[in-house]
Amino acid sequence: MNETTITTPSGTPFIDIVREFDATPAQVFRAWTDPELVPHWLGPSGMTATVVEYDVTSGGRYHYVHRDDSGEYSFRGVFHAVVANERIVQTFQYDGWPDDVSLETLTFEDLGGRTRVHTHSVFPSVRSRDAMVESGMEHGVRDSMARLEELLAR
Amino acid sequence: MNETTITTPSGTPFIDIVREFDATPAQVFRAWTDPELVPHWLGPSGMTATVVEYDVTSGGRYHYVHRDDSGEYSFRGVFHAVVANERIVQTFQYDGWPDDVSLETLTFEDLGGRTRVHTHSVFPSVRSRDAMVESGMEHGVRDSMARLEELLAR
Repeated sequence: MNETTITTPSGTPFIDIVREFDATPAQVFRAWTDPELVPHWLGPSGMTATVVEYDVTSGGRYHYVHRDDSGEYSFRGVFHAVVANERIVQTFQYDGWPDDVSLETLTFEDLGGRTRVHTHSVFPSVRSRDAMVESGMEHGVRDSMARLEELLAR
Repeated sequence: MNETTITTPSGTPFIDIVREFDATPAQVFRAWTDPELVPHWLGPSGMTATVVEYDVTSGGRYHYVHRDDSGEYSFRGVFHAVVANERIVQTFQYDGWPDDVSLETLTFEDLGGRTRVHTHSVFPSVRSRDAMVESGMEHGVRDSMARLEELLAR
């Protein structure tokens, strides 16, 4: 299995996530953006994901909900820019913390049949970045990336 | 005239702009978001502003262009959240630097007939924040705020 690297420098509002996949950028981009495929990998294992809206175009919106026995967690944002198979710039909001919207830049780098996905997130404050890290975000990210790898292998 | 306070802490990706106006939040919000009014105040004096698109709704896009004899400068973004007379969360891109999209949270605070507008911007890096500051952004902001004050007084 490939490794997921999560970097959260102390005192900054940044989170960087890097993951490689044994698939082409077109394959990874499709799994990342097709609303039929997203529920199969997005979120921690043990939760179900429901896509309410997922319109991957500039100005399009997304909204998905994670649920388990303990409750539900709703996330939403808008796409600022979308370059197929290469780059997405999007906002990100956890509805429990609507005052702490972040901005994510995703790049899909072609390694020659393999793909490196880099997600750079910036939060409106160091405090809100820290709260996201302390929420257990890393667990959900690692699970999601492993599940996406499994999906791409099928 | 009211003062515009611009804060750019060294080593951070943040810019904070605070300005008070002698008008209600509804009046300021309208001038801020009506595409017919925006060209009358947005941008440095000495440049003309043309609004190409200005759809102030969640998922709506904006695009405007500043022009003078030396050239043109194009700006665009999407609105993540819009709460009339209270709050806007939007992305911001100068088309000359499309890799450095920032996120802005604007709040319109009711001071009882007066309004305090606070714009909190966060950039994807300290470097890109510094580049924006060094571009002469402060001059354009101060001019815009003074022009908006004049518009509201009419």
